[in-house]
Amino acid sequence: MSISRRGFLTAGALAAAGTAILPGTVSAKEGKGKSKAKSTAALKLSAQIWIIPGKDLPERLATMQEWGFDGVELPGGDMLDRGLPSIIGHEKLYEDAIKNTKLKVSAICGGKGTGDARIVSEDVSKRAGGVDDVKQLLTAAGALHSTGVIYVPAFNGGTKLGNFEIRKILIDTLPALGEHAHKAGTRLVLEPLNRGEAFFLRQVADGASIVRDCKNPGLGVMGDFYHMYIEETSDLGAFISGGSYVHHSHLASRIRVLPGQDERQFVDGFRGLKWIGFQDYCSFECGVRGDAKVEIPKSMAFLREQWAKA
Amino acid sequence: MSISRRGFLTAGALAAAGTAILPGTVSAKEGKGKSKAKSTAALKLSAQIWIIPGKDLPERLATMQEWGFDGVELPGGDMLDRGLPSIIGHEKLYEDAIKNTKLKVSAICGGKGTGDARIVSEDVSKRAGGVDDVKQLLTAAGALHSTGVIYVPAFNGGTKLGNFEIRKILIDTLPALGEHAHKAGTRLVLEPLNRGEAFFLRQVADGASIVRDCKNPGLGVMGDFYHMYIEETSDLGAFISGGSYVHHSHLASRIRVLPGQDERQFVDGFRGLKWIGFQDYCSFECGVRGDAKVEIPKSMAFLREQWAKA
Repeated sequence: MSISRRGFLTAGALAAAGTAILPGTVSAKEGKGKSKAKSTAALKLSAQIWIIPGKDLPERLATMQEWGFDGVELPGGDMLDRGLPSIIGHEKLYEDAIKNTKLKVSAICGGKGTGDARIVSEDVSKRAGGVDDVKQLLTAAGALHSTGVIYVPAFNGGTKLGNFEIRKILIDTLPALGEHAHKAGTRLVLEPLNRGEAFFLRQVADGASIVRDCKNPGLGVMGDFYHMYIEETSDLGAFISGGSYVHHSHLASRIRVLPGQDERQFVDGFRGLKWIGFQDYCSFECGVRGDAKVEIPKSMAFLREQWAKA
Repeated sequence: MSISRRGFLTAGALAAAGTAILPGTVSAKEGKGKSKAKSTAALKLSAQIWIIPGKDLPERLATMQEWGFDGVELPGGDMLDRGLPSIIGHEKLYEDAIKNTKLKVSAICGGKGTGDARIVSEDVSKRAGGVDDVKQLLTAAGALHSTGVIYVPAFNGGTKLGNFEIRKILIDTLPALGEHAHKAGTRLVLEPLNRGEAFFLRQVADGASIVRDCKNPGLGVMGDFYHMYIEETSDLGAFISGGSYVHHSHLASRIRVLPGQDERQFVDGFRGLKWIGFQDYCSFECGVRGDAKVEIPKSMAFLREQWAKA
């Protein structure tokens, strides 16, 4: 591997920097490899739409805009009890509602095929259906210019296969899904979870290695600060390992409520996001303690402070 | 988790550093958490003794000293074809030979129980024997003041158990081995390999998470630049995730010959070692292309250049 391919700083730039390390250097082996003297990352806040209070979609979106959100994460599956249908078949509903705001669609979370482990089922006959469902969601996500569709390969109990076999199936299957995603203008984004939910994929570096092995621009990985607290030994190391493969992030505290509502710190992870020149969204996926109308803006302010310190 | 426990730089130090990140900050969650304004890491070079030319042990050691090595990695198992017995039962032989030099014992590699997967065998009756053998090696390693005994939990084919079960057994078993190691004055050091050799443990971050979960000072993890090239998306991210759990490193090029003999670069990984304030040894485990008497010193010079750039 050449120095430029790995995105190393040049010897000259290193000498100028002394032994300090500059952010914005993409370190992933197969990453874009652009050395930047200054990070181009910015904190773009998003939230899963169901977390935001409001009587209907337009009111929720108006509130998000008022509070200063940059993006909104939409449901891949129906959340009808909250008045939120899946984006599939409702692309226009969401598009029309969002075009009246400055918000962009961050990721799509949930939906058929993205968490049911059919693609890696021990029952081979189930796999094609899982692939088709994920493709359908990717098409809808692309129409909404979403950064990606979140994908959990194997929740615990979803497949009888072990890690070795699951990984092999993914390496064989994901490139075609990545191809579909890329053509649709979006990505399939692997989400590592904590072992209590999914033993198969627990660390960002592991997800990044799967994406690297698939060699496809329509695939990515994400980091969820709640799961990372349990599984990663370093938020910074995790995101540096994720490198240019990282395309989304979920925000939650240690006990999975709003950032700032417990002791969980975000500086180390945000430093990692700055480091890799992260261009995508940090999106709330958490519960809320107290009055959402007070607590969500407070959490956003806390996160902006943490970002400034990073 | 508090800011100080994670070893973050203080807000003041961060302001002084701009957005650049200073090395020597231990980022692992359960690490020692000392913030250092300057890295205390130094490149201490070591080699597996069998790689060094010489008619006998004293001559090999004298050559290592002449070439400027700091440490020597010794065999846990017999390498009698090279005149090198296991350290077990030969502690005094090695101690006497080494005390005439400035060399220290880095790690112990090979030996019963360290690579045969008995501890994680599907045959429960085999496990205790594996534990006993590793303990014996740890005792000998401690007598030689070794930084640690290298341990590969499961080479491919060594056990019928899957990743989930292997990890569980390790979490249950390693703390007692760590306790034994710590009392003996050494450590048991997990080595991630590439998937072609061991699917179970492939990334430094994963090994670090096992060590963290075991909560024992007698356990550690290492990084091997040959395996890392295959499995890690970022050498830097890997070592930052390893943090204070990292206690040894193996040096080899992309094709597993001497560093500098192919295109493999070490700057990114060395930057990681500086970052975590690495105090242990970087040790050759590789083949040699050409005349060892010429090529090994040349490789050492190459590595010192890479370290200076890091």
